[in-house]
Amino acid sequence: MALKTMNDLFVHGLKDIYFAEKALLRSLPAMAKGASADDLKAALEVHLGETERQIVRLERIFDHLGQPARGIRCEAMDSLILEASDVMDEVEDPEIRDAGILAAIQTIEHYEISRYGTLIAWANQLGLSDIVKLLQQSLGEEKSMEQVLSRFAICEVRQTAA
Amino acid sequence: MALKTMNDLFVHGLKDIYFAEKALLRSLPAMAKGASADDLKAALEVHLGETERQIVRLERIFDHLGQPARGIRCEAMDSLILEASDVMDEVEDPEIRDAGILAAIQTIEHYEISRYGTLIAWANQLGLSDIVKLLQQSLGEEKSMEQVLSRFAICEVRQTAA
Repeated sequence: MALKTMNDLFVHGLKDIYFAEKALLRSLPAMAKGASADDLKAALEVHLGETERQIVRLERIFDHLGQPARGIRCEAMDSLILEASDVMDEVEDPEIRDAGILAAIQTIEHYEISRYGTLIAWANQLGLSDIVKLLQQSLGEEKSMEQVLSRFAICEVRQTAA
Repeated sequence: MALKTMNDLFVHGLKDIYFAEKALLRSLPAMAKGASADDLKAALEVHLGETERQIVRLERIFDHLGQPARGIRCEAMDSLILEASDVMDEVEDPEIRDAGILAAIQTIEHYEISRYGTLIAWANQLGLSDIVKLLQQSLGEEKSMEQVLSRFAICEVRQTAA
């Protein structure tokens, strides 16, 4: 890392989320396959499409900055994906497995919400208004997806109570 | 992992956040010391006190469940803490260092918000209403802290613009 300016920090943050989104894109099909509840499966498939578009947006941002689109390993995302994959490998009961997958993907959404929020603040600071707009589209998708997933968590509780 | 029931999943989640909170407790003093802006430094010190109380709450929950208070390594939290410590070691400019510390602690808050939210859903599902109340206190603190930190991010932008 050679982080001397806000611009260095911004590009470093872009590389982090670029790696994270690409890692998530590779793992979402297995998560959707491992999920049992139709609505969870469908939400993961929707998020697969969103993640593809978010990667394209990040590539447009790198291009706008005259930088090659390149990620740097994001250990936090790796470990959250590993958590979901451990649950899928080791939990037999479909209801428990879904609860574990849901918890992992909710934390992944929170990770992304936090990172896009930071990148938007930094892009504003750097006066990069076109880039802010692209990042805001991705942040909006992440927040909507997190709300959908939170409703599933509440529904799980209601179903158990009923 | 031997996750066969919702209760197993719940205890596993408690161990994860217990490890994460204790790791954060150890690292917050260095983050507060590394921060330059008075308000960021103060917020990190407030969060140190909150984290201590959140750990005590988790210990009460383990006690309530008749389980020893024991953590399991949470790689995601380890890597987020490492990110903050890399920024402190390697970034000389105080403004850039503060922006990096702020980004790391905001992601840590989002991690905790997600985990407490999941634990509350699972505790509700298991009918553990006393435990739900304890977890809700911690979730409330995490959400308030995240809002304070988000305002700092907005203020940074305003200061740069001014």
